[in-house]
Amino acid sequence: MGTTPSAVFNKVTLIGAGLIGSSLALAIRRAGLAGEVAIHDASAQVLAEVVELGLADQVFSDLGAAVADADLVVLATPLGSFGPLAQRMAPALKAGAILSDTGSVKGCVIRDVGPFVPEGVHFIPSHPVAGTEQSGPRAGFAELFDGHWCILTPVAGTDAGALSRLTEFWRGCGSEVELMEARHHDLVLAITSHVPHLIAYNIVGTADDLQTVAEGEVIKYSAGGFRDFTRIAASDPTMWRDVFLNNREAVLEMLGRFTEDLNVLQRAIRWGDGDTLFNLFTRTRAIRRSIVSAGQESAEANFGRNRKTPS
Amino acid sequence: MGTTPSAVFNKVTLIGAGLIGSSLALAIRRAGLAGEVAIHDASAQVLAEVVELGLADQVFSDLGAAVADADLVVLATPLGSFGPLAQRMAPALKAGAILSDTGSVKGCVIRDVGPFVPEGVHFIPSHPVAGTEQSGPRAGFAELFDGHWCILTPVAGTDAGALSRLTEFWRGCGSEVELMEARHHDLVLAITSHVPHLIAYNIVGTADDLQTVAEGEVIKYSAGGFRDFTRIAASDPTMWRDVFLNNREAVLEMLGRFTEDLNVLQRAIRWGDGDTLFNLFTRTRAIRRSIVSAGQESAEANFGRNRKTPS
Repeated sequence: MGTTPSAVFNKVTLIGAGLIGSSLALAIRRAGLAGEVAIHDASAQVLAEVVELGLADQVFSDLGAAVADADLVVLATPLGSFGPLAQRMAPALKAGAILSDTGSVKGCVIRDVGPFVPEGVHFIPSHPVAGTEQSGPRAGFAELFDGHWCILTPVAGTDAGALSRLTEFWRGCGSEVELMEARHHDLVLAITSHVPHLIAYNIVGTADDLQTVAEGEVIKYSAGGFRDFTRIAASDPTMWRDVFLNNREAVLEMLGRFTEDLNVLQRAIRWGDGDTLFNLFTRTRAIRRSIVSAGQESAEANFGRNRKTPS
Repeated sequence: MGTTPSAVFNKVTLIGAGLIGSSLALAIRRAGLAGEVAIHDASAQVLAEVVELGLADQVFSDLGAAVADADLVVLATPLGSFGPLAQRMAPALKAGAILSDTGSVKGCVIRDVGPFVPEGVHFIPSHPVAGTEQSGPRAGFAELFDGHWCILTPVAGTDAGALSRLTEFWRGCGSEVELMEARHHDLVLAITSHVPHLIAYNIVGTADDLQTVAEGEVIKYSAGGFRDFTRIAASDPTMWRDVFLNNREAVLEMLGRFTEDLNVLQRAIRWGDGDTLFNLFTRTRAIRRSIVSAGQESAEANFGRNRKTPS
């Protein structure tokens, strides 16, 4: 297959066909960003679904064969698999190829993948900040990245031409692109993504453990606020286990601040200090307006759930 | 104005025209549940908006005049205002009228309103478990209550006929109706609504306080999970201050459990205990499926945000 005029790469190989990998395949096709797309997945069942859905031009159960001719290889599997995958694919990578990823933590990617990158291969970590609570190849859709940010954390000495092509690639997928130092990325994402997921998982677990309140009641009255948390608490367990194990320092730092602040609110409730509560609740209202203004959130009430009845 | 065949009450008076009051007015009209709807609000500006939007047949700045002929009076203001409102309206309430409310805590309503209810008036607290993050008369819509639960917490000796008419009224507004003891209601809502709001307000505050991470970064990368929390952290500050001040015991109890569980997760992260994380994350995924199955949540990824581009 030949490249189209908009193609950035001749061949792109995606490692992993979950929500992110399958969405990437669809976004690449939508914009004609690659001459051909190959997909490798360790699961035969996932590969069969990839074939059924027609997500790729080529599918490979063999990792080395999948990456052999690729101009861009993107790791889109849970973070814990990156080191072993990099080690296994290294001998098959083409000179001049770009190796990237979609992991939610970047320091650990540089630590785990970096040592295996062969001379002549351009290693540029990336993180598209987008997702849903659904998993697997059927969950993918071409618009996932549209209007959201993709953060690249190039290491020192990264080739400018390779960085430019990868930037063009992510823009073609619909993302806006930002460069950042890996350590700062991991701190920013700890508060905007990792700790929010942790406390969502936690409160859903707390509710599930209650014996004084029946499980049916938690479900029935969830529209009071609880149901919002269940969305991100339904995210992929393996992916999120690996995020927490690999961004320990930043998550513990942000979690410490969260708990400290929660203690202040708890004390305000105990002592009937309404002003402390009111002042915080007024301040937080403004933050949402900023997120809506920045185009990162729907302005519709209830996330637009009320477009359907019942919501 | 005469009653329609579907009318449950001749005249309904709503006290407060915020999100809930204005939605009630529209739901009543949609189903023809009342011969006429009167609205009182302490704010002249809100009353002017009520007139402009055509939400009521009559608007009153005088509380006594508003409730004088009403067969049903519904308090739809912040909880802290209930006691004084009940005291002021008591002399004007008609014998045989039903006095109800939409407050999110029920023990305090019985404590604050109960003593002022005149002989011959039927006092039946209610709580429609539905809402959005928006406030004021323009935020209302007739479908708000559709498919969600309204919990009634009748006190001992409540008139069966009055309870039956109020049940019919809420069903007409689109709600499903459940009876519950006030104390149990307050415990159930502490975990399904009050503590979720508190931790959402809290994490948005924590993020806003960060100096190592710029505010612009918190906004830009909010699609990683944070933005979900900003929705309920944008809820009405006065309403929520009053909820926490009036459901102290149950909120502190549930918050204690939440913090205890969070400490376990924090320790798992610190010590690299992936199994504890994975097991919780797998268990919580199932809860969301139950909420979707129960018709209390959209089955669409990302709350259906992705129906629009960019989401």
